[in-house]
Amino acid sequence: MTDSTLGTRTGRPLGVAVVGAGYWGPNLVRNFQASPHFRLRWLCDLDVDRAHRVLGAYSTVEATADYAAVLADPEVDAVAVATPAGTHLEVALAAVRAGKHVLVEKPLAATYSDGARLVAEAEDRGLVLMCDHTYCYTPAVSSIREMVRSGELGEIHFVDSVRINLGLVQKDIDVMWDLAPHDLSILDFILPETVEPVAVAAHGADPIGAGRACVAYLTLQLNTGAIAHVHVNWLSPTKVRTTMVGGAKRTLVWDDMNPAQRLAVFDRGVDLATPQEIGPNERREMMVSYRSGDMVAPALKEREALRAMVDEFAGAVTEGRAPLTDGRAGLRVLDILEAASRSLEFRGAVVGLRAGH
Amino acid sequence: MTDSTLGTRTGRPLGVAVVGAGYWGPNLVRNFQASPHFRLRWLCDLDVDRAHRVLGAYSTVEATADYAAVLADPEVDAVAVATPAGTHLEVALAAVRAGKHVLVEKPLAATYSDGARLVAEAEDRGLVLMCDHTYCYTPAVSSIREMVRSGELGEIHFVDSVRINLGLVQKDIDVMWDLAPHDLSILDFILPETVEPVAVAAHGADPIGAGRACVAYLTLQLNTGAIAHVHVNWLSPTKVRTTMVGGAKRTLVWDDMNPAQRLAVFDRGVDLATPQEIGPNERREMMVSYRSGDMVAPALKEREALRAMVDEFAGAVTEGRAPLTDGRAGLRVLDILEAASRSLEFRGAVVGLRAGH
Amino acid sequence: MTDSTLGTRTGRPLGVAVVGAGYWGPNLVRNFQASPHFRLRWLCDLDVDRAHRVLGAYSTVEATADYAAVLADPEVDAVAVATPAGTHLEVALAAVRAGKHVLVEKPLAATYSDGARLVAEAEDRGLVLMCDHTYCYTPAVSSIREMVRSGELGEIHFVDSVRINLGLVQKDIDVMWDLAPHDLSILDFILPETVEPVAVAAHGADPIGAGRACVAYLTLQLNTGAIAHVHVNWLSPTKVRTTMVGGAKRTLVWDDMNPAQRLAVFDRGVDLATPQEIGPNERREMMVSYRSGDMVAPALKEREALRAMVDEFAGAVTEGRAPLTDGRAGLRVLDILEAASRSLEFRGAVVGLRAGH
Amino acid sequence: MTDSTLGTRTGRPLGVAVVGAGYWGPNLVRNFQASPHFRLRWLCDLDVDRAHRVLGAYSTVEATADYAAVLADPEVDAVAVATPAGTHLEVALAAVRAGKHVLVEKPLAATYSDGARLVAEAEDRGLVLMCDHTYCYTPAVSSIREMVRSGELGEIHFVDSVRINLGLVQKDIDVMWDLAPHDLSILDFILPETVEPVAVAAHGADPIGAGRACVAYLTLQLNTGAIAHVHVNWLSPTKVRTTMVGGAKRTLVWDDMNPAQRLAVFDRGVDLATPQEIGPNERREMMVSYRSGDMVAPALKEREALRAMVDEFAGAVTEGRAPLTDGRAGLRVLDILEAASRSLEFRGAVVGLRAGH
Repeated sequence: MTDSTLGTRTGRPLGVAVVGAGYWGPNLVRNFQASPHFRLRWLCDLDVDRAHRVLGAYSTVEATADYAAVLADPEVDAVAVATPAGTHLEVALAAVRAGKHVLVEKPLAATYSDGARLVAEAEDRGLVLMCDHTYCYTPAVSSIREMVRSGELGEIHFVDSVRINLGLVQKDIDVMWDLAPHDLSILDFILPETVEPVAVAAHGADPIGAGRACVAYLTLQLNTGAIAHVHVNWLSPTKVRTTMVGGAKRTLVWDDMNPAQRLAVFDRGVDLATPQEIGPNERREMMVSYRSGDMVAPALKEREALRAMVDEFAGAVTEGRAPLTDGRAGLRVLDILEAASRSLEFRGAVVGLRAGH
Repeated sequence: MTDSTLGTRTGRPLGVAVVGAGYWGPNLVRNFQASPHFRLRWLCDLDVDRAHRVLGAYSTVEATADYAAVLADPEVDAVAVATPAGTHLEVALAAVRAGKHVLVEKPLAATYSDGARLVAEAEDRGLVLMCDHTYCYTPAVSSIREMVRSGELGEIHFVDSVRINLGLVQKDIDVMWDLAPHDLSILDFILPETVEPVAVAAHGADPIGAGRACVAYLTLQLNTGAIAHVHVNWLSPTKVRTTMVGGAKRTLVWDDMNPAQRLAVFDRGVDLATPQEIGPNERREMMVSYRSGDMVAPALKEREALRAMVDEFAGAVTEGRAPLTDGRAGLRVLDILEAASRSLEFRGAVVGLRAGH
Repeated sequence: MTDSTLGTRTGRPLGVAVVGAGYWGPNLVRNFQASPHFRLRWLCDLDVDRAHRVLGAYSTVEATADYAAVLADPEVDAVAVATPAGTHLEVALAAVRAGKHVLVEKPLAATYSDGARLVAEAEDRGLVLMCDHTYCYTPAVSSIREMVRSGELGEIHFVDSVRINLGLVQKDIDVMWDLAPHDLSILDFILPETVEPVAVAAHGADPIGAGRACVAYLTLQLNTGAIAHVHVNWLSPTKVRTTMVGGAKRTLVWDDMNPAQRLAVFDRGVDLATPQEIGPNERREMMVSYRSGDMVAPALKEREALRAMVDEFAGAVTEGRAPLTDGRAGLRVLDILEAASRSLEFRGAVVGLRAGH
Repeated sequence: MTDSTLGTRTGRPLGVAVVGAGYWGPNLVRNFQASPHFRLRWLCDLDVDRAHRVLGAYSTVEATADYAAVLADPEVDAVAVATPAGTHLEVALAAVRAGKHVLVEKPLAATYSDGARLVAEAEDRGLVLMCDHTYCYTPAVSSIREMVRSGELGEIHFVDSVRINLGLVQKDIDVMWDLAPHDLSILDFILPETVEPVAVAAHGADPIGAGRACVAYLTLQLNTGAIAHVHVNWLSPTKVRTTMVGGAKRTLVWDDMNPAQRLAVFDRGVDLATPQEIGPNERREMMVSYRSGDMVAPALKEREALRAMVDEFAGAVTEGRAPLTDGRAGLRVLDILEAASRSLEFRGAVVGLRAGH
C-alpha cells in the first residue's frame, strides 16, 4: 500500500481519516486540514452528531459512524486514531489490516502486549505505525534533543519533570497513565541512543477517594547512574509543566508555561576537585568548584507541534521510513508505564524494565 | 538556673553565647545583638581569628576559643550551638550540664540516639532545649500552620516541597541531610496533631561522583492516606523553594523566591461526584466537578525569621515552657532522616517511622 | 432594516459578510463561523486568492472580489469591515447605504470627521454601527469595568497602560495609531460615565528613521484631576501588556501576558491623614498611612473575546439597540488620537479634547 | 588636606563620620564599618538618641549631636552627609570648609545653584565631592554602562525606566524629586560621553490631594534624536523597577526585582529595509525585517552596591581623583530635576537643559 509518490509536495495529498471526535480528534482534524500533504476525507465517531459538531456548519469533510466504510474507501491512505486507549488495538489493527498507515494517539495501546501486537502487524505489512507523542514535535523539545545528543550539555546527570494541573480525573486510568506518557515520551526522545532507563519506582496517592492515583511520583534509574523523576498530579490548582535536564557542562530548564522564555540554558554547575587539590585543613564545603556563567534563552521557532507531527507522518509515509516517534517508541513508554503500575501496587518497589525493544 | 524573671521585657536581658563562627553563627550573632531580650556576651570558635572577623572592628562582644570559660561565666544563661552537626551532642551536652539553656542549629544531632540523649538530659534538668528550625518562624510558615490547623484548607491531601539550588556539596553529609531538614521541620510544624508521617521512601543519585547523594527524592506516607514529597538537589542552576499544600477545600502554594507574592491560596479543587449522580452514558471524565474560584495572596508581616526564632527562645526560657520547635521536634525530623537514609541504602524500600516521640 | 426576529436564538441566523482577508479578517471569519447567531456567506477581498487561502480547502463559504455583489445579496444582513483604516469610510458607508448593519475594525475611520459621517449615516438609517474594540470583550476588561463602575476600587486616581512589543512597523500609520486605540478604547469602556479625558499630550520618537513615531507616550488629563498614561512601542524585544488602575480603595493590575493570573486586585494604598492629626514634630514621611492588605486574583471566565464581541453584535442587531462599543465610542477614541497627533507635531503641547460626542 | 598616603591598602584607614541617622545613614554606617579602607569615628544626628539606637548596644563608634566637634576632629578625613536634602548645602559646605572630603546622599543639593556652590568650593580646595548615586555601583548598572559604552547595544534608540511602589509620601518633595534622581543618575552614568539629554517635559498628578505630585512621567529628548522616559509613582501597590535600554543592535532589560535574572540582553530588533528593496506591491508592513535571536542573561557579581560606592569614595580620596559619580554628575541630575519641575508647573511644556556642566 505504501506508494512513494503519495503525499509528496509534487504528488497528490494523502487521503486521511480521523477516528474519534472527542478531546483530541478536533486538533487532528484542524491540523490535517491545514497541511498541504493531506486531504482529510472522513471524521468517524460512533456518535455521528459529535463528529458533525466538530466539523462545524461550513465543512466539506464527511462525518460518519461507519468505520467499515472509512476503511473501505480506497482514497484513504492513512487513519489517525484518537479514540480511548482501551480501543486502540481494535481500531488500529483493523486499519493496518485494511492496508492503511496508522497514527495513534498516546498511549499506543492499553497494554504492552497489545502495543507489541500492533507493532508486529504494521512491520509485517510494511506500513507506518506512528505514535502521536505530540510534545516531541514542539520547537522546545527539538532543541533539547539536539542539545542533549550533540553533547552540548555534557553527560546527563538528572532529568526532573513536573506536569501538574487541576486535571480531568479519568474514569478508566490513573494520573500516571494520563499524564506521564508525555514526560516519558519526551525522555525517550531526547536521550542519546546509549542512555536508557533500566528500572522504575512509583509512589502515588488517591487522597480524594477517586479509586485511582491522582498524584504520582516516578523515579527512573538510568543505565549511566543518572536519575530521572516525574511528578504528575491532577489536584494542583496551578498548572506547572517544567522539565530540567542537568548535564555535566550545562543545565537546561524548559518551562512550557512561559512562552516568552520556554528554554533557559545555564552555564552553571558544580565541578568536583580531585582529592589531591584539597589540603587537609580546607573547609568541608571546598570539595567542589562552581561555574557561574551566563544563561542563554535560545530563540525558538513559532510552530504548532501538531502541525509538525502531521508533517512527519506524511514524510514517513511518502518516504517509506520509520517516523521519529514510531510504534517502538510507544512500546518503550508502555513498558515503563506497566512497570510503574506494578511498582505502585507493591508500594514503591523498584521494578526492572525490558531491554531491547 | 531557670529564673522566670530573666529576660522578660522588664527584667534584665538573658546573657547568651554563640558557639561556632562559621556559616550560620554570624546570623545568630546579628540577631541576638538586635534583640532586647538578650545580651550577647561571647562568640566562641576554635578559630578565634574567625570569631574576631565575624564580630568586626567595632564590637564590644568578646571572642574566644575557650568554651570552658564561656560555660563558667555565670552571666551566660543560654548557649546557641552553630557548630558542625557531628559536634552538636558534645557541645550541647556540656552546656546543658553547665546549667545553660540551649539552642541548637538544625539538625539537632548527628543521629537519633544522640538527639534523644540531649532531649533527655535537658528535660531532666528542666532546661530549655530548642532546635533552630528557622523556617518555622517565617511569616509565611506561620500563616500556613494557621491555615492548615484551623481547617481553612480542609483535610490535607498532599504536600509537595522542592528545595533545589546550586549548593555547597558537603564533605560529611548528603543533600538529604543538608536540605531536607528544612522541609521536614516545616512539615512537622504545620501538620495538625493528629496527622503524622508513618513511613518514608527515598531515591537518590550521585551523578557527579561526589561520594554521596547530590539529588534526592523523599516520599512520605501520612497516617491519613495523604502523601508528602520532598525534592532536594544541589545541582540545579536555578534556585527553587516551593511548597504546595493541597487540601480538600483550598490549596496553597508557598514560593519563597517570590517576595512580592510568597503565599497564594487557591479556592480551586476537585469535588468527587457520588456515583448515583453520574448517568451511565456520561463521558468518562465527568466523575468530578471543579471549583474554580479566586486566588488570595494574603498580606504577610515583614519580619526576619531568625529574629522571631530568637524571641521565641527568650520567651521559652523566661516563661519556663517548651519552645515551638523543641528538642522533640528535632527528634521527629531525625527519625525521618535516618529512615530515609536506610531507604536510600535499600534502593527506595519503604521504611517505617517510630511512633510517639 | 432592523428586524427583531433576526439572529435570535430561535430565529434564523444573521447573514454576514467579512470584507478584508488580511491580518484581522481571518479571526472574524473563524468567530462568525463558530457563532450560532450568524451564517457567514462571503469573504470579500480585492485579492480573491488571499480570500480563498483564508477559507482553506474545506469551506463552503464563498470567496469573492466583488463587493457590489456582496452588498446586493439580500441574505446579507450585516457586513464586517477588516480593511485598512484608510478605506473604512468608503467600505462601511457603502454597506450602510445598502441597509446593512456594520461592524468596523478599530480605528473606526482614518479621521474624526470620517468617523462622524459614518455615525450620522448609520443613526439616520437606524442601523447598528459597531466598533470592534476587541479587548473590551475580554473577561478581564469586563471585570475591570464592573469593579471600576461599581465603586469597588473607589475614585480612580490613575491609569497606566503599557503595550509594547517587537511590532510590525506600518507603512501608513505610526505606533500611536496602531496600538493606542486598544488602550484608549479600554479606558473609554471602563471609566464611569462622569469621568472623561479632557486633554492629551504626546511625546514620540522615530529612532530608526522609519518616517513615523515607533515609540510614543500619551498623557491624558481626566476631568477629575486623575491622570492616564499610555506607553506604546514597536521596538521592545519583550511583549508587555499591562494596565494598572489605581483607585482610592483598591488598585488593580491587569497583566495580559500572564494567563494564570491576569487580574490582581490589591487592597493596598495610601491614606492621607488630615492635617490636625499631624503634630509639628512628626517625621516628614508621616503625613500618610498605608493599608497593606491582601491581593485577590479573581477567577475569570475562559472566553474568547472575539466570540463575545461577535455575540454582542448579534445582540445589538436583533434587539435594535446600540452595542457596548458603538460608533460613538469609536469617535471618542478618534478624537484622542487626533489630538495626540497634533500634540506630537507641537512637541508635546497639551491639546484639549472635544466634549459631548 | 588630601594626603596620598591616607586610606591606601597599606596606609591607615580613612577616618570618617556619618551625619544623619535617619533612613539612609544606617546603611552608610554599616558599610563604612565593613570596609577596610575606613575607620568610622562618629555618627552625628541632632537627635543623639536616634544615633545611639542606630549604632546599637555593642558598638565602639561614638554618637553625638555636636557637628562642630566632628569637624574639629583631626582624625576625621571625610564626612558622609545623609541629612534631608534641604540641609545638604549647609552641612556639606561646613565639612568642605573644615577641609574634609565629602560624600553626599542624592540629590546633591536642594537646588542647582546650591549644588554648583558646593562643587565650586570643593574644587577650589582640591577636595573630593562625591554624590552617592548608589545604583551606579550595582553590578547590573556597571554591566549596562559597559555594554552601552562599548557599542555592544549599538546606537541607543530609547531608554524607558519605571520606578513605582507604595512609597512614603514626603513632606517636602514630590515623587519626582524623591525617586527620579535614581533613574536620572543611572541615565547619566550609562550614556556615552557624546550622548546627552537636551530637553525635558514632565506630567504629574496629585490625585490623593497630598499637595505635591505623587505620580509623574518625565520625557527626555536626547541630542541624538533618541528618547528617554521615566515613570515614578508613590501609589502603586506593586514594586516595579525596570529599565529598558533599546539599541540598534541589541536591547537590554534590567529588572531589579528579579534577582535570579536581573539583566536580559535580547538579540532582537527591527531592521529597516532600504526603499529600493521594497517592491510597489509589497504589503504595508513589509518595510522592515526582524531579527529574532537569542536572549542572554549575563552572570553578575554578587556585590552590595553601597560597599562598592564606599570603596570608590576611598579610591578617589587616596588617589586624589574625581570619583565616578562626582559633584558634576549630581549637578547634571539637579539640572534635569529643576527643568522637570518647571515643566510640571507649565503643564508639560518642554524645557531646555543647560549645556556643559
